[in-house]
This record gives sequence, structure tokens and C-alpha cells, in this order.
Amino acid sequence: MKCHKCGAAAVIQMRQHRLQLCAPHFIEWVATTTQRAIDAYQMFTPADRVLVAVSGGKDSLSLWDLLLNLGYQAAGLYISLGIDEGIDYSAKSLDMCHRFVLEHHPEARLHVVDVGAEYGQGIPVLARTRRRGQTKPCAVCGLVKRHIMNRVARDGGFAAIATGHNLDDEAAVLMQNTLHWQTGYLARQAPVLDERGGLARKVKPFVRLYEREAAAYALVRGLEYIYDECPFATGSTTNFYKELLNRLELTSPGAKQQFYLQFLRARDAGRVTFAEGGDLDLQPCARCGQPTTAGGICAFCRLWE
Amino acid sequence: MKCHKCGAAAVIQMRQHRLQLCAPHFIEWVATTTQRAIDAYQMFTPADRVLVAVSGGKDSLSLWDLLLNLGYQAAGLYISLGIDEGIDYSAKSLDMCHRFVLEHHPEARLHVVDVGAEYGQGIPVLARTRRRGQTKPCAVCGLVKRHIMNRVARDGGFAAIATGHNLDDEAAVLMQNTLHWQTGYLARQAPVLDERGGLARKVKPFVRLYEREAAAYALVRGLEYIYDECPFATGSTTNFYKELLNRLELTSPGAKQQFYLQFLRARDAGRVTFAEGGDLDLQPCARCGQPTTAGGICAFCRLWE
Repeated sequence: MKCHKCGAAAVIQMRQHRLQLCAPHFIEWVATTTQRAIDAYQMFTPADRVLVAVSGGKDSLSLWDLLLNLGYQAAGLYISLGIDEGIDYSAKSLDMCHRFVLEHHPEARLHVVDVGAEYGQGIPVLARTRRRGQTKPCAVCGLVKRHIMNRVARDGGFAAIATGHNLDDEAAVLMQNTLHWQTGYLARQAPVLDERGGLARKVKPFVRLYEREAAAYALVRGLEYIYDECPFATGSTTNFYKELLNRLELTSPGAKQQFYLQFLRARDAGRVTFAEGGDLDLQPCARCGQPTTAGGICAFCRLWE
Repeated sequence: MKCHKCGAAAVIQMRQHRLQLCAPHFIEWVATTTQRAIDAYQMFTPADRVLVAVSGGKDSLSLWDLLLNLGYQAAGLYISLGIDEGIDYSAKSLDMCHRFVLEHHPEARLHVVDVGAEYGQGIPVLARTRRRGQTKPCAVCGLVKRHIMNRVARDGGFAAIATGHNLDDEAAVLMQNTLHWQTGYLARQAPVLDERGGLARKVKPFVRLYEREAAAYALVRGLEYIYDECPFATGSTTNFYKELLNRLELTSPGAKQQFYLQFLRARDAGRVTFAEGGDLDLQPCARCGQPTTAGGICAFCRLWE
């Protein structure tokens, strides 16, 4: 298998692009693809300070690495959730982030917020003892992460929060929303969520990159990352839709990409219109000042009552 | 397993409805479900003469049987396509239709159009020798069937053509259209296609019935039908999407139904709007008089040139 650009030994074959590349040309290709997405969706410019939400996994560390290599002002934010579950999950993932900085970008700044230390309880305890977390901790965890990301971005004056969501993530969410015709979600799902009412701008620069490509990037760049998924995420519906889409992709390479990108194009061109289901009326929380639709105290602050 | 209505032995369990029924109650349930769909989508009334397109398969024979039992004026139309392919496909399916009439509804009228006898060539030869049929005969076959159905409906003064499309068929087509965001098709896909420009009204009374339920209906009613699929249909994309949806259904019963019915509801309520992509300008064909968008001679007539 030879690189289509230089004839050297290829390290990856991407059937959906009919492209196989050697290590240096693959890295170059990921950089170009990501840069094009950043430009096409007007995510940020080199003048902006960007906060990359890192988990220690392949997507977020690859993203942080690439943004720094592309010359962007990218700081990392690691939120320590206190998840152990017998595999020392949180401690190991934080370790990966520290090592990443040490070995690859010693000049980069990593913000660490420890939920347990700062608020008194980590996610597992919090979820077990709150109604919202009874079935799965993921809802509580999402709420906590969103709150902290937003707080750090606001306090640090960052122009945007960048997350490592890749094409597989977005296509899976799109599949889930489409299967239920959740038109409110379908109206909003996008590579960029603009700032509104105190909610920081959010961007997804890897939105055109397959999960497999993000993993290959980490491998080729020699980035160590945590292989384990969060132990609470196994059997999640997102994973189920990812598998479904992978089956489709196997039969028709590019189907996943086409599903997501055609959706964005059709919506941008007005060929499909989804009702938003009413503007969210955001008010500052009486306790923390972050925006809430609930009025009074926000859901995050109510968690700790 | 007991019938939820009378406690007798159940013959079917329908997980998506959390319902299991004995033979008589299942037949009653299919009748009610179908009647409700006919009414909800205003398909036709007992005063209308309906032409049921029958293929000899479970869906169309079940539909014809049920419509007759519900007291509708339903004639059958069998189009003999001249497909043999070593399994005597067309001859056997016609035989099933004749037997159906003989054994279950001797008063019913079956129209038979033999493509080979009437136009000179059956589908296999026609497809092999025409550019349009080179890869698969299905496109040619669809064109021929649509033309003939429309002709018979018009000449016979039928109010509507009823086809046996079930929920699985519709959901698979919806999946295909959605995966590619074919907004023109998404705008039009519906249980009822109104008459326009000389194209007969088309209705799908089984649109809320799972394929499995249509098959069970045929079984319980003792309707003989052809088990073989059309030999040209194996490996079709529709079958692929059906499998995909069945995998989904296995994990969350009702997902298939929800996908399709929520789509109709969201579109009816205006929560999602698809651009039609321009009105089709239908003109009568200079040769056969049937509507065509091509101008001059229609695609069907050009097939035989």
C-alpha cells in the first residue's frame, strides 16, 4: 500500500476519500482538513484564545496538539470527575494530559478543575445521591462539565471552547435526533454554537474527521492517550448509533460523512427547515451568575443543595 | 403466551405495541389498524372503487383480502412481468392471485396485464436490451408498472390505486432519503399521493402495519402467497435499510414505527419543512397520453422504440 502523494509506504487507507497516505502526508492532510473546517465554519482565528476541553482521550489530545501546531493560542481544560470504578479512570486520564504537555508542548497551559476537591463530591457519589443521576451518571456529568467549561471560558476570557467531537460523534447524534425527529435539536446541532446569553461559544474543529482518523493521528504523532472509555459510557445509545453507522459505512464508504455533511448543506441552503421550538429565555442564576432557563437557581447549583 | 383480550392462546406478540393476541383478535386488530389509517389519511370511502396492485406476495394479497372484508369495492391488478429466472417467478405469482380469488373471494375482479403479450417483451429482455436497465432491471420494471397501473386506473375509472407498502417499506425508503437528505423526496413521501396532472391517486393502507404483521395476517387468514422475493430484488438497497432498521427495532421495539410516524407528524405540524425542488410540469405524452415531465414522448413509450 503506497502513499498517493509520494509513493512511500502508506500508514492509512481512507476508503471514503479513496486516499491512502504515508505518515507525514497523513498529518498534513489532517491539518489541512481541520484548518478548512475552522475556516469554513468561521470557528476562530489565530488572534483568538481558545480553550480546548481535554479528557485524556485520542480526540481531544489530537485536537489540542494540532491546534498548537497550527499556531493557535490553545489552552487545555481538564475536568477531574473523580471516576475510579476499579480502573483509576480519572487519575489516569489526567496523567495523560500532563504527559502530553510535558512531552509535546511544554509551553502549553493546562487548567485543571477537580470537581471533588472544589465542590465536595465527585461524579459517582453525586450521581448516586441525586435523583437526576439515578439511572446513569451521564446526565449529571454533562451538566457539571458544561457548567465548569463555561465558567473557565468566561473567567479566562476565552473566545471559544473547542471540543474533540468528530464526525462519528456528530453523525451518531444526528442519527439519534433524526430517528426521533427531534426538530428542536435538529435546528441547533452544528459545528459552531454561537455565544448567547452568557453561554460561551462552542466549536468542533474535528467535525469533518472520522473517529478512526483522529485515532490514527494520535498514533502517528506518538501521542499517548487513555484507551479506556469512561466506564459509565459503555452501552450508551450514542455507541449504538455509531455501530449502526459503521455497518452502513462498511457497505458504502462515505455514507456517514455524507449523512452529516449533506444535513448541514441542506439546512444551510434552506432545503430543510426545523422549527426551533421557541427561543430559550436565558437568565443569570441567582447564585453563580451563569445563564439558566429555569429562573432563580440553575440546575448546577441545585445539584449541591 | 395468552391473548391480552380474551386469554386464549396468542398467535403473535407485538413488542412495539406491548400486545399479544389470539388469531381472531389479531385479525380484528389488523382490520382496525388499517381502517384507522384509511380514515386518518382520508384514503378512500366505501363509495370509491379501488384498484389494488397485487403481486402474489403477502402484503398485497393481505391488503386485498382485508379491503374486501371491510366492504370496500376493491378490484385487483396483476401485472405479469415475464420473470422466470429459473424459479418460474411470474407464473407462480399470477397463480397465487388466481387461487386467492378462487378460494377466498370468488366475486372479486382480477385485471391481468401481461407485459410480454401486450408490448412484445417481458422485463428481463427489455432490461437487458435497454440502457436504462443495464445494471438492474428494477428501474425499467418500476417504470413499466407505474405506467400500466396508471393506465388501468384511468381507463377503469378507479378512484385510487392501493399498494401493499407496509411500515417496513416506508421506513426503509425514509431512511434512504434521510441518509442522503434527499429533500425533494422527503417532501413528497406520504401514505397518500394525490391525483395530479393525470397521475392517478395512490394510497398505502398498510402504512402503519409492520411487515411481520402483514405476513402473520396472511398466515392466520390462510392466504397462500409467493414466498420468493423477485429474483432481481436480492441485495437491493431497500433490503439493506430494512435490515438496519430491524437491528434498531431489536434493541428498541417501536423505533421503526416511531421513525416513520414521527416524521409524518413533524412534517404535518410544520416542525420540519422540506423544499420540493420545483413543481413537476406534467404534459400528456404525444403517443400514449399519460403524463410525462419529459415533454413529447414519455419514458415508457421511448422504451419500446
